[in-house]
Amino acid sequence: MESPDIQNQMMGYDRAATMFSPEGHILQVEYAEKTVRLGSASIAFSCSDGVVILADKRMLDSLMVSESANKIYEIDDHIIGTAAGILSDARILIERAQLLAQQHRVTYDSPIDTISIIKDLSDIKQQYTQHPGVRPFGIAVIIAGIDTKNRVFVSDVTGNYFEYYASAIGENDEKIKELLRKQYKHGMKIDEAIKTGLSIFKEIKGKSFNIENFDAAFISKEDKKVQKLSGEKLKKYVK
Amino acid sequence: MESPDIQNQMMGYDRAATMFSPEGHILQVEYAEKTVRLGSASIAFSCSDGVVILADKRMLDSLMVSESANKIYEIDDHIIGTAAGILSDARILIERAQLLAQQHRVTYDSPIDTISIIKDLSDIKQQYTQHPGVRPFGIAVIIAGIDTKNRVFVSDVTGNYFEYYASAIGENDEKIKELLRKQYKHGMKIDEAIKTGLSIFKEIKGKSFNIENFDAAFISKEDKKVQKLSGEKLKKYVK
Amino acid sequence: MESPDIQNQMMGYDRAATMFSPEGHILQVEYAEKTVRLGSASIAFSCSDGVVILADKRMLDSLMVSESANKIYEIDDHIIGTAAGILSDARILIERAQLLAQQHRVTYDSPIDTISIIKDLSDIKQQYTQHPGVRPFGIAVIIAGIDTKNRVFVSDVTGNYFEYYASAIGENDEKIKELLRKQYKHGMKIDEAIKTGLSIFKEIKGKSFNIENFDAAFISKEDKKVQKLSGEKLKKYVK
Amino acid sequence: MESPDIQNQMMGYDRAATMFSPEGHILQVEYAEKTVRLGSASIAFSCSDGVVILADKRMLDSLMVSESANKIYEIDDHIIGTAAGILSDARILIERAQLLAQQHRVTYDSPIDTISIIKDLSDIKQQYTQHPGVRPFGIAVIIAGIDTKNRVFVSDVTGNYFEYYASAIGENDEKIKELLRKQYKHGMKIDEAIKTGLSIFKEIKGKSFNIENFDAAFISKEDKKVQKLSGEKLKKYVK
Amino acid sequence: MESPDIQNQMMGYDRAATMFSPEGHILQVEYAEKTVRLGSASIAFSCSDGVVILADKRMLDSLMVSESANKIYEIDDHIIGTAAGILSDARILIERAQLLAQQHRVTYDSPIDTISIIKDLSDIKQQYTQHPGVRPFGIAVIIAGIDTKNRVFVSDVTGNYFEYYASAIGENDEKIKELLRKQYKHGMKIDEAIKTGLSIFKEIKGKSFNIENFDAAFISKEDKKVQKLSGEKLKKYVK
Amino acid sequence: MESPDIQNQMMGYDRAATMFSPEGHILQVEYAEKTVRLGSASIAFSCSDGVVILADKRMLDSLMVSESANKIYEIDDHIIGTAAGILSDARILIERAQLLAQQHRVTYDSPIDTISIIKDLSDIKQQYTQHPGVRPFGIAVIIAGIDTKNRVFVSDVTGNYFEYYASAIGENDEKIKELLRKQYKHGMKIDEAIKTGLSIFKEIKGKSFNIENFDAAFISKEDKKVQKLSGEKLKKYVK
Amino acid sequence: MESPDIQNQMMGYDRAATMFSPEGHILQVEYAEKTVRLGSASIAFSCSDGVVILADKRMLDSLMVSESANKIYEIDDHIIGTAAGILSDARILIERAQLLAQQHRVTYDSPIDTISIIKDLSDIKQQYTQHPGVRPFGIAVIIAGIDTKNRVFVSDVTGNYFEYYASAIGENDEKIKELLRKQYKHGMKIDEAIKTGLSIFKEIKGKSFNIENFDAAFISKEDKKVQKLSGEKLKKYVK
Repeated sequence: MESPDIQNQMMGYDRAATMFSPEGHILQVEYAEKTVRLGSASIAFSCSDGVVILADKRMLDSLMVSESANKIYEIDDHIIGTAAGILSDARILIERAQLLAQQHRVTYDSPIDTISIIKDLSDIKQQYTQHPGVRPFGIAVIIAGIDTKNRVFVSDVTGNYFEYYASAIGENDEKIKELLRKQYKHGMKIDEAIKTGLSIFKEIKGKSFNIENFDAAFISKEDKKVQKLSGEKLKKYVK
Repeated sequence: MESPDIQNQMMGYDRAATMFSPEGHILQVEYAEKTVRLGSASIAFSCSDGVVILADKRMLDSLMVSESANKIYEIDDHIIGTAAGILSDARILIERAQLLAQQHRVTYDSPIDTISIIKDLSDIKQQYTQHPGVRPFGIAVIIAGIDTKNRVFVSDVTGNYFEYYASAIGENDEKIKELLRKQYKHGMKIDEAIKTGLSIFKEIKGKSFNIENFDAAFISKEDKKVQKLSGEKLKKYVK
Repeated sequence: MESPDIQNQMMGYDRAATMFSPEGHILQVEYAEKTVRLGSASIAFSCSDGVVILADKRMLDSLMVSESANKIYEIDDHIIGTAAGILSDARILIERAQLLAQQHRVTYDSPIDTISIIKDLSDIKQQYTQHPGVRPFGIAVIIAGIDTKNRVFVSDVTGNYFEYYASAIGENDEKIKELLRKQYKHGMKIDEAIKTGLSIFKEIKGKSFNIENFDAAFISKEDKKVQKLSGEKLKKYVK
Repeated sequence: MESPDIQNQMMGYDRAATMFSPEGHILQVEYAEKTVRLGSASIAFSCSDGVVILADKRMLDSLMVSESANKIYEIDDHIIGTAAGILSDARILIERAQLLAQQHRVTYDSPIDTISIIKDLSDIKQQYTQHPGVRPFGIAVIIAGIDTKNRVFVSDVTGNYFEYYASAIGENDEKIKELLRKQYKHGMKIDEAIKTGLSIFKEIKGKSFNIENFDAAFISKEDKKVQKLSGEKLKKYVK
Repeated sequence: MESPDIQNQMMGYDRAATMFSPEGHILQVEYAEKTVRLGSASIAFSCSDGVVILADKRMLDSLMVSESANKIYEIDDHIIGTAAGILSDARILIERAQLLAQQHRVTYDSPIDTISIIKDLSDIKQQYTQHPGVRPFGIAVIIAGIDTKNRVFVSDVTGNYFEYYASAIGENDEKIKELLRKQYKHGMKIDEAIKTGLSIFKEIKGKSFNIENFDAAFISKEDKKVQKLSGEKLKKYVK
Repeated sequence: MESPDIQNQMMGYDRAATMFSPEGHILQVEYAEKTVRLGSASIAFSCSDGVVILADKRMLDSLMVSESANKIYEIDDHIIGTAAGILSDARILIERAQLLAQQHRVTYDSPIDTISIIKDLSDIKQQYTQHPGVRPFGIAVIIAGIDTKNRVFVSDVTGNYFEYYASAIGENDEKIKELLRKQYKHGMKIDEAIKTGLSIFKEIKGKSFNIENFDAAFISKEDKKVQKLSGEKLKKYVK
Repeated sequence: MESPDIQNQMMGYDRAATMFSPEGHILQVEYAEKTVRLGSASIAFSCSDGVVILADKRMLDSLMVSESANKIYEIDDHIIGTAAGILSDARILIERAQLLAQQHRVTYDSPIDTISIIKDLSDIKQQYTQHPGVRPFGIAVIIAGIDTKNRVFVSDVTGNYFEYYASAIGENDEKIKELLRKQYKHGMKIDEAIKTGLSIFKEIKGKSFNIENFDAAFISKEDKKVQKLSGEKLKKYVK
C-alpha cells in the first residue's frame, strides 16, 4: 500500500498550484514552502524603540562583495524587509514594494503604512497560487516598519500574512521561533533584540556560526532612518 | 473492484474544476470544500437587536499579535464578514467587498445592501468554478449586515448562497449547525447569541477550548456600528 | 469486453465538452445533464389565465430563511424562471436575464418578449459547450412569461429550447412529465394548475412530501404581476 | 492485430479537430458527421416555381407546442433553412444568417443572395475545424432561397457546400438521397415536391410515420414569401 | 522491432505541426499531404497563347448542380486557381485571394501580379505549420494567371511554391506528372493542352473516366478573360 | 539499458523547444538542425572584389521553371541571401529582410548594413526557440552583402550567427566546410570563388553533379549590383 | 529503488520551469544551469584602475572571422558584458541592455549605472522562470562597468545576481573560481588581472590552450572607454 503522499504524486495532484488534492490540499504550494526552508534564515523583532531584522546571508564565496549579498532591503526610510527562498523571486516583489512606497510619497506627500506594503505583496502572491500557468512565488517575506506604531509582518507562500512581536523565516524557522517564544520580552530594546537574535543564530548554527555572514538593520522610532550593521559593528553584539 | 471514488480519480475526472464526472459531479469543487473544513470555524447569528459573528482564530503562536489573527472583517460600518478555508483567498474577496461598499457610499451617498455584497462575492466564486486554468476559491464566506433588516448570508465554494437565522462554516460545521438548530431562538438578543455561540464552541472543542483564541463582532440595529470583543471582554460571556 | 461507455471513458472522449466520441456524442454534456437531474424538480404550466411555476426547494436546514431558498426567480413583472442543477450557475444566468429585461424597458420603454430571454440564455449555454476550457452550465432552465400570449420555455444543458404547455426539470423529470401528459388539460386555470402540480409532487415524493419545502409563483394575464405563494397560502392547494 | 480505426483511437489521432491521422483524415470531423446523422432528417427541393423544405421534427412530447419544434427557419422573406445534428449549434448559425440578411436589407436596400448566406455559414464552420480548442459545429445545414434563380445549398460539417436540385440531411440521408435520385424530376412544381418528399419519408419511416411530426415550408417565385405547412394543411399532401 | 514510423507515432512526434521528429521531419505536415492526395486531381498548363486548368470534380451525386461542383475558381479576370484536399480549407484561401485581387484593382487601378497571389496564400499556409493549436491547411493549390507573362504556380501544404510549365495536384499526381513530362511541349497552344490533359486523365482513370465529371478553364493572352468549358463543349476535346 | 537519447525521448524531453533535457540540451532545436541538413547545400564566399553565393537547387522536375527554383534571394541591391531546410520557413524570413531593407532606404535614404539584416532574422529565430507553442524555424541562413566591407554571415537554427570568410549550410555542410578550409584563399576574386565552389560541389556530388541544378549570384564591390549566373553562363566556371 | 533524481524525472517534475519538485526544487532551471556550463568560460575582475573581462571564444572554424566570435559585448562606453550558455539567448539580453543604456543617455544626458543594467536583465530572466510556456534563458551573464566605482556583477539562470571582486561563468567555473580565490589580490591593476586570468585559463585548458581563441576587454577608470585586446596584443600578457 502506497503512502497517501506517494499516491497523490502518482495521481498528479501535485503538478499545478491550481489543483486541490482529494484531501483539500494544494500540493504545489506545499512544495514551494519547502523551497522557502531551503533558503537561509532571517529573524525580525518589534521593539519598544523600533524594529530590527537580522539575516543570515550565507555568503560562500570570499570574492563576493559583502554588501551585495545583503538580504535586508530598504523599502523606504521607515520600512525594511527580508525574504527566504528563491532570491530572484524576492527581488521582484521588493522592487515592487519600493516603487509603491515611492509613489505613495509622491502622490500623498507622506510615508506609506507598513500594512499597505505587506498587503500588496501578499495579494500578488495569492494570485500566483490561483491563476493558470504561473508558479507560486517561492518565498516567505518579512516586512518591518514604523508608522503610527512599530510593526513586523510575515507573509507566507500563499500570501497569507500575520503581525508578530518577533518571528523568523527560512531554514530552521520552527526551531528559531521556539527559541524566540522563550527569549522575546515585550518592551525589549533594539540593542537587546540584536543580541538575542545573534545568540539564537549562534545556538542554531553551532560551530558553523560566522558573524561575517550576518547582516542587521534597524529603524528607531526616533529618527525613522534605516541603520545597517555588519562586520565589526555587528560583532560587538555577539555575546 | 475499485470504489467509484478511486475509479473517478484514476480516470482523471477530478483534475479540473471544469470537468463533470460521469455521475455529474465536479470533483475539484468537492475537494475545495474539504479545504474549507480544514479551516477553523465561525458562527453567525441574526438577532432581534442586530447581527453577531464569532470566530475561532486558532492562534498557535504566542508571538503573533492577537488582533492580526482576527478573522472577522469589517466590510463597512453596517456589514461584517468571516471566512473558513484558505485565508489568503478570503482576503482577496474581503478586500473586494470593502472596496465595493466604499464605492457605493461615494456614488450613492448611502450604505450598500448586505445582499449586494454576498451576491458580488458569490458571482466571482462561481466564475472560478467554470473558467479554464484558475482554481476555485477554497473558502466559505459569512456576510452579516444590517440594512432594512438584519441579515446573515453564507456562500459556499461554488458561490451558492442562502440566508440563515444562524449558521456555521469551517471545521465541524455540521456538528455546530446541529447544536445551533437546537439552541437558536427566534428573537434572541446579541448578548444571548454570543453566550450561545461560545457555549457551542466550548462543547465542540472540549478541553482545548481557550477563550483567548476567539473573537466576536456584532452590529446593533440601533447604532449600526461594528463592535469587536476579545480577551477579557469576551471572557465575560463564557458560562 | 468492456462496455462502450467504459471504453469511451478509458479513451478519454469524455474529458472535454469540445470533443465528440466516435459515436458522435459529446459526453461532458451528457454528464452535465446528470447534474441537472441531481437538482430538485420544478414544474411549469401555461394556463388560460396565465403562467405558473412550482418548485421543490428541498430545504434541509430549519435555520435557513425560507424565502432565501426560493428557486423561482422574478425576471421582470411579466416573466418568471426557475432552474435545476448547479444553483450558482443558474444565478449567473438569471441575473443576466434580469439585466436584459431591465435594459429593454429602459431602451424601448416596453416589456421584453419571453422568447428573447430564453434565446439569450440558451445562446450563452451553447457557447459554453463549444469553446475551450470552460465547462457547460450544469443547469436546465424554465422561463415562463406573458407577452402577446402565455409562454413556457424549457432550455436544456446544450442551450436547446422548446415551448411547452407544461413541463418539468430536475429530479424525476421523466416521471413528472409522464404524469403531466395525463393530467394537463388545455385551457386549465392557474388555480387548477397549482393543485395539479402539487398533487404530482405529492405522488412522486410520497411520504417525504412536505408542503413547507415548496414554492409557487404565477403571473395572471390580467394584471401581469408576479404573485408568490408559500407556506400557509400554498397549503390550501394541497388536496 | 487491432483494426486501423482502433489503432488511430488508441494513438489519440481522434482527440482534436486540428490533428490529421497518419492516413490524412481529421477524425473529430468524421465523428461530428455521425452527430449529424443522429439528428432527424430534412429534404429540400428546387422546383420550377420555387423552393421547398420538408423536415421531420421528431416531436416526442405531446405537451410540446408544435410550432416550437419547427425545424425550418425563416432566414429572410426569400430564404429558408434547416439543419440536422446539434440543434443549439444550428440556432447560433441560423441567428447569424438572419442578422446578416437583415443587415444586407438595411445597408443595400435589397434582399441578400442565397449564396452569400451559405458561404458565410460555411466559412464559420470551416474555422471551427481548424482553430484550437473549439469543436466543429455538429450540424449539416440546408439553405434554400430565391434570388435571380431558385437555389438549394447543402453545407456539411467541414463547411464544404454544394448546390443541389434536391438533397437530404440527417438520419438515413443516404437512403433518402437514393430515392430522391429516382423520383426527382427537373421542372417539378412545389406541390409535387411536397408530395414526393412526404412519400419518401413515409417509405423510410414505415409504421412510425406520423404526419403530425412533419413541417414543410416553401417560397414561390411569384410572391417570394415564406409559406409554412403543418398539421391538417400538410396531411392533404400525403398520398 | 518496431518500424521507425510506428516508433515515431508511439512517441507522439506526429501529434502537432509544431514538433520535429528526431529525424527532423514535421509529421503532421506529412499527414496533411496525404489529405491532398485523397482529393481529386487537377492539371495546369502554361501555353504560348495563355494558361489552362483542367479539374476532375469527381461529382458523385446526379442531383448536384454541376457548376456548383466546379473546382476551378476565378480569382480575377486574368487569374484562375484550383485546389486538391479539404475543399472548405481551399475556399477560405481562394476567397482571400479574390479579395486581394479586388483590393489591388481598387487601390492601384491595375490587375494584381499572379505571383502576389501565390505568395500571399503560401505565407498563410506556412504560418499554419508553425503556430500553436491550428492545423495546417490540408490543400495543395494551383494558381495560373497572365500578367507580363503566362505563369503557373503550385503551392504545397507547407506553403512552399514553385513555377511550372505544367503540373498536377491531388490523386495520382505523381503518375500524372510523369505523363506530363513526356507529353508537354514548350510552345503548345491552349487547345492542344486541353486535349493533352484530358487524354492523361483518360489514361489514369481508365474505365471510370467520364467527361461529365471534368471542368476546364483557360485565359488567353489576347483578351485576358476567363473562359470555362464543361459538358458538351469539353467533350469535343476528348480524343 | 537504454541509450541516453532513447531515454530522453521516452521521458519526453524532446517534445518542445521550451524544455531543457537533464543534460541541458534543447532537443527540439537539435532535431530542427537535422531538418537543415535534409535541405540542399549552399556555399558563400567573401572575396577581395565582392561576395558570392552558390546554391544547389536540387531541381527534380523538368517541368519546373528553372528560375523559380532559384534559392539565392536578392534582399537589396547590395545584399543576397540563401537558406537550407524548410523553404517556406525561409521565404517568410527573406521577405521580412527585403521589407526591412526597403524601409531603411525609404527612411534613411541609404542602404542598410548587412549585419542589421542578419541580426533581425536571428532575433526572430531565437524567439521561436523560447516562446510557447511555436516551433523553431527549420532553416540555416546565409546573408552576404557589401557595405563598408564585404561580409558573409551564417545564422543557425537557434539564431546564433557568426561572420565567415567562406562557409556552407545544408546537406554535407561539414564535408564542404572541410574542403573550404583547404581551398579558400584570403584575397581570392569572385571568379576564382565560383570555380572553387563548383569544384567542391562536383567533388561532393560525384556522378550526380549536374550544373543545371546550380545557381550562383554575386555582388561586386564596384557596382554593388546583384549578378545572377545559371545554365550556360555558369557552365563556363566548371573545371 | 530508483534514485530521487530518476523518480522526479519519471513523475514529470522536471518538465516545466513553473513546477516545484516535492523537495522544493525547480528542475528545469537546474537543467538550464547545465546549459550554462556547456558554454565556454569567461572571467571578470574589478581592479583598482578599472574592470576587465577575459573570454574563451572557443573558435573552432579557421574560416570564421575572428572578431565575429568575440563574446565580450560593449553595452555602453563605460559598461561591458559577457555570457555563457546559449549565445542567441545572450544576444537578445545584450541588445536589450545596449538599448537601455542608449535610452538613458538620451533621456538623462548621463551614463546609466552598471547596477541598472544587471537588474533589468535579471528581472527579465526571473520572469522567464515563473511564467507559463516560455523556457528560462539558458545563460549566465557578467556585467562589468565603471560609474561611481568599479563594479562586476554576475547573474545566474534564475536572475539572481551578486557583485564580485572577481568571478567566472561557463565551463569549469567552479575550478576557475577556486583559482581566483587564491590568486585575486585586492588593489590589483588591469594589466595584472589580464595576466592572472590568462594564466588561470592556461592552467585549466592545459595543452589545448591557444591564445588565438581568447579575447579581453577592459575599461580604465581614467578614460572610461572600452579597450579590446586579442591576437598579438593579447599574446604579450601570457606568461
